Amino acid sequence: MTEKAVVILSGGMDSTTLLYDIVDSGAEVYAVSFDYGQKHIRELFCAKKTCKILNVPHRIINLKILNDIAPSALTRKDVDVPEGDYKDDNMKQTVVPNRNMVMLSLATVFAISIKATKLYYGAHSGDHTIYPDCRPEFVEVMKTAIELADWNKVELDVPYLFIHKGEIVHRGIKLNVDFKNTWTCYKGKEKACGMCGACRERLEAFYYAGMKDPIEYEEFK
Amino acid sequence: MTEKAVVILSGGMDSTTLLYDIVDSGAEVYAVSFDYGQKHIRELFCAKKTCKILNVPHRIINLKILNDIAPSALTRKDVDVPEGDYKDDNMKQTVVPNRNMVMLSLATVFAISIKATKLYYGAHSGDHTIYPDCRPEFVEVMKTAIELADWNKVELDVPYLFIHKGEIVHRGIKLNVDFKNTWTCYKGKEKACGMCGACRERLEAFYYAGMKDPIEYEEFK
Repeated sequence: MTEKAVVILSGGMDSTTLLYDIVDSGAEVYAVSFDYGQKHIRELFCAKKTCKILNVPHRIINLKILNDIAPSALTRKDVDVPEGDYKDDNMKQTVVPNRNMVMLSLATVFAISIKATKLYYGAHSGDHTIYPDCRPEFVEVMKTAIELADWNKVELDVPYLFIHKGEIVHRGIKLNVDFKNTWTCYKGKEKACGMCGACRERLEAFYYAGMKDPIEYEEFK
Repeated sequence: MTEKAVVILSGGMDSTTLLYDIVDSGAEVYAVSFDYGQKHIRELFCAKKTCKILNVPHRIINLKILNDIAPSALTRKDVDVPEGDYKDDNMKQTVVPNRNMVMLSLATVFAISIKATKLYYGAHSGDHTIYPDCRPEFVEVMKTAIELADWNKVELDVPYLFIHKGEIVHRGIKLNVDFKNTWTCYKGKEKACGMCGACRERLEAFYYAGMKDPIEYEEFK
């Protein structure tokens, strides 16, 4: 029997590659994205386009309440997204507290409601230091929590958890991912800024993979 | 230092008693409720009134998206709430899948944003059989997940987890809870129906405690 799976798709390069990966596995795939008032709403346009290309049903869940409960630099218009590499001191502002548990729990509701048995989520090894809710120990307990949450079991799978972002670039190229149609920058501008932590990490990943990032940047430093 | 605590308050008799309990402990208390389009919206009015009486700041989080993602008999106007005792076969319709994980995760966002260190939740022993996400093993993993979710630790505390609902009545009476201002019935009528699983369980609890429930019922059977 074909596996019915839900993939959490931000529209960034990791979850987009993951979506290609799971579609490639032959599963019956549904994608779910979250609109939490992020400045980088472009990622949702990318997500939508990717789903169209892959012919995957796409559900966008309105999660703007997250912004009301705990505004962060990622959502507040009056606070600038910090620049520089991911480091505790400047990038902590971009942490929407407990965002991943909220997203995982709502994606699980969706998975249960369509009787899917798998839930895929694209956290990778580089996320661990800055985002507490991307750490393997957090993912591990969420796996158990999701399994216990309903009589119909949903299995959380995070296949890139111990993989470097550069490896994801390699994997994406193998799967013909159109990286031009993925969005990473935290600022909501026309081109990626090349300066925020998210851009720096993306550029590093392409550098590590020995590839050129196909998207346009405002500047490199 | 006074403990800063968030209490999840449905407006039912369990979480209302819990709120009185935590206020009584001397903590600095904040209450959070969820509007998920429940037919028994009266519980939210009760919650509001209780918070006013206790002088506790009250936050109602709009969670109607839950209804869009997975409609249940508790929220859909075209599906009747089943009658009779809580039993797997008829009450399963009232399960909003994974509702508690969603609520716990959002209450955690709120707790982190106001720098609270405790999150209280009123699940009790009678909830275990019908709601998978009220079982002790589920609560246990959520406790760990919430602790790991952020660098600022929030501790989930579920003090009634192994307590019978009848004991909660006893506890409430000791704390001067106004049970008239608590709502349990799943139907959205003027008086409690006395017939749905929630009403039956409430009536049983008062019977067990040897007390008369002060609210009005349409009928007893």
